[in-house]
Order: sequence, then structure tokens, then C-alpha cells
Amino acid sequence: MSRTVFLNGEFVKEEDARISAFDRGFLFADAVYEVTSVRAGKLLDFDGHMDRLERSLGELELNYKLDCMEMLEWQRELVRINEIKEGIVYLQISRGAADRSFKYPGPDVQPTVFMFTQTHAHVNPADPEVGIRVTTIDDLRWGRRDIKTVQLLYPSMAKMAASKSGFDDAFLVEDGQVTEGTACNAFIVTQSGSIVTRQLSRDILHGITRAAVLRYAREAQMQIEERSFSVKEAQESAEAFITSASNYVMPVVDIDGVKIGTGRPGTVARRLREIYLEESLKAAK
Amino acid sequence: MSRTVFLNGEFVKEEDARISAFDRGFLFADAVYEVTSVRAGKLLDFDGHMDRLERSLGELELNYKLDCMEMLEWQRELVRINEIKEGIVYLQISRGAADRSFKYPGPDVQPTVFMFTQTHAHVNPADPEVGIRVTTIDDLRWGRRDIKTVQLLYPSMAKMAASKSGFDDAFLVEDGQVTEGTACNAFIVTQSGSIVTRQLSRDILHGITRAAVLRYAREAQMQIEERSFSVKEAQESAEAFITSASNYVMPVVDIDGVKIGTGRPGTVARRLREIYLEESLKAAK
Repeated sequence: MSRTVFLNGEFVKEEDARISAFDRGFLFADAVYEVTSVRAGKLLDFDGHMDRLERSLGELELNYKLDCMEMLEWQRELVRINEIKEGIVYLQISRGAADRSFKYPGPDVQPTVFMFTQTHAHVNPADPEVGIRVTTIDDLRWGRRDIKTVQLLYPSMAKMAASKSGFDDAFLVEDGQVTEGTACNAFIVTQSGSIVTRQLSRDILHGITRAAVLRYAREAQMQIEERSFSVKEAQESAEAFITSASNYVMPVVDIDGVKIGTGRPGTVARRLREIYLEESLKAAK
Repeated sequence: MSRTVFLNGEFVKEEDARISAFDRGFLFADAVYEVTSVRAGKLLDFDGHMDRLERSLGELELNYKLDCMEMLEWQRELVRINEIKEGIVYLQISRGAADRSFKYPGPDVQPTVFMFTQTHAHVNPADPEVGIRVTTIDDLRWGRRDIKTVQLLYPSMAKMAASKSGFDDAFLVEDGQVTEGTACNAFIVTQSGSIVTRQLSRDILHGITRAAVLRYAREAQMQIEERSFSVKEAQESAEAFITSASNYVMPVVDIDGVKIGTGRPGTVARRLREIYLEESLKAAK
């Protein structure tokens, strides 16, 4: 069945979602995006995604007036039309179509707004009862990973390289330290029970699920350290896991062939997943 | 007047050049490109551009069977229809449209091939008799600049930042050394007359015009050093210039407010520009 997608204010069949080949999203990767989880037909962390989108737009001086109420209605309508119970809404805003120039076009050029849904089974086939196995790959991405742009070629290449080596995903590594996963934040749990994840900076995406999980962990009186960790520390840790809008909290049971803890999903990751699924749904829109 | 552009085997009006919003060039910057100069209606360094395109496609495992003779005919036809005497042909190949996934789609997905022309006055308003003024900006691009992908957001941001500061362009700087310009290779001429440009690696684009200019300089018995140079060395040099398909050879007369040499285009840059324009046209297709 063909999906209904959203393009520049209209709901259209996916095969009719056509943009100009001069769109700067296509010619310059001049576009930002957000992926919002849907559970029980509701949008998780919607406000967090809108806040980050606003920030990304600002960092690129991309002149789109975000109306969060309108966006909420559009996303709800997409979820309703496509009957998404569990899945995601993808939203991309590019600077729009203009004749090619490294200089940004003038204010008469309208940004392109594109949204579509995907089911959870499509975006994330991993089983949280089994966990995922990750390899490690040099982090060669650009220096502003805090801006959520569509410059996703390297994460895509890394995901393919991981897959070819028989892994589910990759941790990206810079100066010996894990930055994050290809499209998720990376966490470990030390032998003494501390939850460790890299501190916010321009080196990593400021994950919305990451922030929510840390908030719930703090509320549950868990110990948290926001700092870098090495691949070796991760391999010697009690547990590891990732967070993202499409993975929620997903245990990592193996890094480069080294079993993490017992080699099965750990209790902290399982508990955080439970809390996240329960709490985020309460606040869902 | 509306241009005629090329999209997936057809010549269409530019306003009719529409691609799927699911194109991986739009969602993942999963696309490569080439810009070929046109002079006297002929294509400069055509074979060099095709060789590099083939390499870029290979590095990304982007499965497009490049037929150089066919591409030459298409580009010639575009130049003819649009009556381009002096300008460029832009060519982009993306991995094509598929439902969004970090994993590459299967072999049934057809790459998107898009080409259009621009006049020289449009792409490069700089006057070689005056030269350009550049500022310096941290190089925050990804680690595979040798692959000519459309991940051009940072060069675009740098161009805008340079423009806002009153400069024509920017030299990008990493570890104190100039890598290249936003969309060109950077050269200096030492006080003893040596032409210096950064050695080929994954840190810079392997410029087609760069290679041609170095070849002509060697034939003219000029001294060449392929090595890194600092901003300070550039500011203290006798001359500076850039090379690119749209700039040919363009003198740089000022770096961050410091005059280079006399503050006017230098004799080596002018001579190399002359040689390049003459020799490249002889071999044009």
C-alpha cells in the first residue's frame, strides 16, 4: 500500500512527492531533519524534537518559521492517515530550490518541508531481548555533529561496513574514544553500576532519547557520568546500550567480538528501556 | 529564459526537473558530482572529470555504469541547446530513490543522473585582473574530501561567513595548515619562485584543474613543491592563487587583510592562467 506523505503543506501519495532537482537539500546537503517516535499512535518527545529542530535551523540560518502547533497537527494527521501504531515520523526541511551557488539564496526562496512515516518493524528489526552486536569504525564525520543535518553519507557507509563484517551497527571512534553510534548515542554501565555516556559538545548529536533516558535515570536515583569512554573501557564494562528515537533503549551485547558482561542484555539497559517506554508514553502527544 | 537540463536520460525544461523526495541524494547526501568548464563551447579536461567521477562512484560503491562517450554526447548536447560559450556543465549522480534506510538499497534502485549548465558570469564574477581576497576558517569537513560528494554544507557555510566578513572566499585551515579553498585548491609562490600546493591525500579534493596546472607548470620548467603550508607562510609568500573548474587560475591578493606580495595579481599566477586557458582549450572536447 502506498503511503501518504507530506510535502510543502500538502498530503500526497509517496510516488507523487517530487521536488526540484535544484533543491539545496539535493545539491548541497543543505537541510536538517528530525525523527520522532510513534507509540500507541502518539508522538514521543515531540517538544524535544521541535526544540532541537529550531536550534538546527538557527545554526544554519535556515529561514523557516516553525509553528509547533501546526507541525503537531500535520504529524498527527500523517500518523492517522497511515495508521501508524508503532513507528516514526521523519521530517526534513531544506533551504529550498535555487540555481546552484555556494552562497545561500535570497529570502524569496521557500524552504522545502517533507515528512513521511515508517513502521517500527521497518526502521528497527532488532530484538531488545537479544540485543545488538557492534563493531568500531573511525569517526570521519564533519565537526558540527550537534546540528542534525542530512550529511549522513558517512554514517550510511559505516552502517554498510558494519553489516558486511557481520555486525548490526558501529560505534564511531575518534582519538581512541567512542563518540556515538551511526545514528544513536552510546552508553556503558561500569562494573560499579555507573551509567556513562559522552558529554554534550559539537562532537555528538544531542539525542532527544538520550536526554529523556538520563532524566528518567536520575529520577530513579541511578549514578550518571557524562564523559568520554574508550573502546577498551566499553568492552570491559558491565553493560552497554544505545538510545535513539527508533531504537528507544537497545542493549549492546558484543563490541568487536568481545562479549559485554554476560553477552546478554543487562539489567540496567532493560530497566531503562522499560522506564523510557512507560514514561515517554505518558507524556506523548 | 528557462534552461534545458538533463534528468535521467531526458532533456527537460529546468522547472520540469523533478526528483523523488525519497532520493538518497536528498535524504543522505548520497551522491557525487563533477563540474566541467566550457570554453568556446567546448568541454575542458573532460577525460579528467570522467576519471575522477569513476573513482568517486567506486569509493561509494555507487552502482552506475558510466559510459564516457554517451556522457560526452549528453554534455555537448546540453551546451549546444543552452548556447553556452563560456560556463560550466554540472553533473550529479545519486544512489537513487528508495525508502529511507542507512543501508544502501538493492540493485533494482536506479541512480539519478542530473546535469545542467551555468554561464561563466553566473558561477564566477571575480576579475582575474583584480584577484580575490580570502579569509581563513577552520576546516570542519569530513575526513574523505578526496571523494567529490554533495556534502557541501560546510563549504557553503564558510563561503557565507567569508562574504559576511567582506571577503570573496575562504581558505580552510586544519592543524595550522591550509587544506584548500571552499571549492578550489590553494597555491602559493614562495619568495624564491617555487609553486607550492598541498600534496594529494584524503584531506583535499584531487582537483582536475590543479593537476592540469601542475602539468603545464612542469612543462614550463617551473619549480613545484607538493606539501602543506601555513597561513603565515601564505601571507609572507610572493603570490597566492586558487584553481578550480569555474575559476581556472585566480590570483589571491589578500589573506585575512594581509596583502600578498604587491597586493596585485602576481606574474606566476597570470602566466599559469594564460597557459591553462591556451593549453586546456587545445585539448578540449
